[in-house]
Amino acid sequence: MNTNRPSTQQTAEAARHASHTLAPLSLDHRNAALESIAQALEAPDSEARILAANAQDLAAADTLVQAGELSSANHARLPLSPHKLAEMVAQIRAVAALPDPLGRQLDAIELDLGLDLEKISVPLGVLAVIFEARPDAVTQITALALKSGNAVLLKPGREVERTAATLVAIIREVLAATAVPPDSVALILGREQVADLLHLPALIDLVIPRGSRALVEHIQANTRIPVLGHADGICHIYVDGHVDQQLALAVIDDSKTDYPAVCNAVETALIHASVAPTFLPQLAARLRAKHVTLLGDPQTQQLLNPASNPASNADPQSSNAHLAGASATVAAPVGEVADWHTEYGDLTLAIRIVPSLDVAIDHIHRFGSTHTESICTTDPVVAARFLNEVDAATVLLNASTRFADGFRFGLGAEVGVSTSKIHARGPVGLEGLTTYKYIVRGQGHLAASYRGPNARPFTHRRKP
Amino acid sequence: MNTNRPSTQQTAEAARHASHTLAPLSLDHRNAALESIAQALEAPDSEARILAANAQDLAAADTLVQAGELSSANHARLPLSPHKLAEMVAQIRAVAALPDPLGRQLDAIELDLGLDLEKISVPLGVLAVIFEARPDAVTQITALALKSGNAVLLKPGREVERTAATLVAIIREVLAATAVPPDSVALILGREQVADLLHLPALIDLVIPRGSRALVEHIQANTRIPVLGHADGICHIYVDGHVDQQLALAVIDDSKTDYPAVCNAVETALIHASVAPTFLPQLAARLRAKHVTLLGDPQTQQLLNPASNPASNADPQSSNAHLAGASATVAAPVGEVADWHTEYGDLTLAIRIVPSLDVAIDHIHRFGSTHTESICTTDPVVAARFLNEVDAATVLLNASTRFADGFRFGLGAEVGVSTSKIHARGPVGLEGLTTYKYIVRGQGHLAASYRGPNARPFTHRRKP
Repeated sequence: MNTNRPSTQQTAEAARHASHTLAPLSLDHRNAALESIAQALEAPDSEARILAANAQDLAAADTLVQAGELSSANHARLPLSPHKLAEMVAQIRAVAALPDPLGRQLDAIELDLGLDLEKISVPLGVLAVIFEARPDAVTQITALALKSGNAVLLKPGREVERTAATLVAIIREVLAATAVPPDSVALILGREQVADLLHLPALIDLVIPRGSRALVEHIQANTRIPVLGHADGICHIYVDGHVDQQLALAVIDDSKTDYPAVCNAVETALIHASVAPTFLPQLAARLRAKHVTLLGDPQTQQLLNPASNPASNADPQSSNAHLAGASATVAAPVGEVADWHTEYGDLTLAIRIVPSLDVAIDHIHRFGSTHTESICTTDPVVAARFLNEVDAATVLLNASTRFADGFRFGLGAEVGVSTSKIHARGPVGLEGLTTYKYIVRGQGHLAASYRGPNARPFTHRRKP
Repeated sequence: MNTNRPSTQQTAEAARHASHTLAPLSLDHRNAALESIAQALEAPDSEARILAANAQDLAAADTLVQAGELSSANHARLPLSPHKLAEMVAQIRAVAALPDPLGRQLDAIELDLGLDLEKISVPLGVLAVIFEARPDAVTQITALALKSGNAVLLKPGREVERTAATLVAIIREVLAATAVPPDSVALILGREQVADLLHLPALIDLVIPRGSRALVEHIQANTRIPVLGHADGICHIYVDGHVDQQLALAVIDDSKTDYPAVCNAVETALIHASVAPTFLPQLAARLRAKHVTLLGDPQTQQLLNPASNPASNADPQSSNAHLAGASATVAAPVGEVADWHTEYGDLTLAIRIVPSLDVAIDHIHRFGSTHTESICTTDPVVAARFLNEVDAATVLLNASTRFADGFRFGLGAEVGVSTSKIHARGPVGLEGLTTYKYIVRGQGHLAASYRGPNARPFTHRRKP
């Protein structure tokens, strides 16, 4: 079957070839292609094709859910509507409106008279994006890739294959009438094809997995191609001994409850021992009222489960009810922390009482994922030490961990979040899809002239 | 044996721990440590220790050469002398004099009133450098690592183990009296330990192989840690139809003969068909006089071996002698190109006649290693197309490929050359040993305030 379908290698080779035409195109050409795609998707016949394919995906997805092969959360992300399609089109136009990430002069140095060096931002080449569930990923990723001059191979989850295939077909049709080669955007389907793709480091410059932690870890473990992504988001908030307690309560609450499932939600609060007796009961009351499950080290349990020995099985409700004036259900006892390494991803917060800033920083370096770390303090010296010494992509002072996000950082569009330190770190915008190129312009300059007893000196004059 | 020696994992963990102290140190502290190392190496007793160890390495290396396990080229790189040691010390001081690569403000954005974002350059963390032969690599790499706030694990080739161990011992001794933790610099010995090291992606941020292509390829194939390096340097020079032929002759000569063994030497000349009949005989004469072996496509062979059919075995000397007026030994015939993919690394040049700029660019994209590519032309439109369209770390106009080098580019020090597009590309200086960190300073700012019907807008005001 499907013997006429090109192999993954052929598709990747075609994308590489297309990328050589795409990369040097002007901003006008790239933006014109994005506008053409936007218009094509708005056309009534496209809408009908896309919604029909989406209906087929939805029908198949019902079966997958029944078979336990698709989560209901992912099922909920599948449906498209005319309204959702209009949002996708608006998103393409928003990417077109962003500043050009290419051709920026990153440096300029005169090496010698008539010999000039420039460092210019250029595309990476060919991206492979492996995603789950969301059909709007197709248009968003295509827009980001073409805007940054990159060809892109798109591998959708099987639950969204028909919708993705239809979107890619329309995009390739419309690209034929633009300066961007249609092979710049291609679909990869099937598990085996993903395995093939991960073995093509000469043809693919960057793999971007978008989906579950399991997906990201699987890809990181199975390719030599650089991967932009993060598997973990174990974020901490340290509450210093000198602190505006009301501020700290609000910051922890927001960091935990604003959107508990995402990677920049807080997992662990580290509380300085000097404020723990007054701060922790308020924190417990506030979070229990929002149905947050609290886990703690023995000290925290002792403080918040006063009538019961931390290790005992005494009735916790009676011993806690007075603390928060809370109902029986919300005054659940503070449980034991099983593992400071756990990313709960839900309404659970681990709490540890620490004797000092140093112990807090050491805990973060030992158990954190270098993603996002925050401190609440009124002491400028402690703040400066924390911001300077903590090794993480984003460090925050008196602010919610939830701000670590490409949109909130003003990057225009978020390609992903990276916990790698190489290339792009933290929230990644269009710049993360670029590299640079050195351009040297001479007039017959030879290396031999700059060696030996009569060597010419280099001027190395940096230009403004 | 050696049961007291720490395991590779323990050494790497100690380096990671040390890196957390080293990373936030001020420039003064880092430079003071470099100056302390320089002074320690200058001390007469250190010199005696180092030269004694080096003498032992040299004696063992003689045996290795006899057993065919060490090349005479690598053997020639081993010996140290008081003069060479003084050069190494001067190199450490030169790195100390470079501008600080850390703490640079790469961006600054006001997200909202009182909520400010900064993007600041920071160290990568822990480097592992695997090198061969040269003992001066120890001091140069240590200086670059500490200057950029990184801990470093050094794995020398076995032929230089004793010298390297002595240098590292002296460095660790002197660091004990500085703000830089001694565990910031550590020695890794033995093949098995390299294998262990390559399996520690959580502890090591970047691997830098310095040595043969085989070494680089072995490491790239055996680790998930990012590798900074290049295995190939297949560089081309395209001679356009509109060209200053004397300039092009000198540029090709310099690019081939200045230092044929290095990665930025030219391997293939692509000659536009319209100039080939006049240009190639001059090129052949000039390069044959410098004992360069010429290989060519059939057209080139026909042009330069006129009396013999390219495929024939006719006596080539008689047919070529008139061309260059050269002696019998230098007028060897142009042989067949076996493979445009070959990096000769010696006095061999492959030549292809091409009908157009497009064919030249296509050849470069097919066979090049995206390292360094040059064009000789007087046509500004052709020049602009080549510089824009060719996908390589360095592209040059009317200049020798040999300029693609960190020192010549004014980077101050070269950490290595990268043919990866991710993170650092081309000649890599201290900046390639850094990443960045986002710092957010707020006053109790919550993500929830920026969502929903009464959402506050972000200001996203970029600061100058």
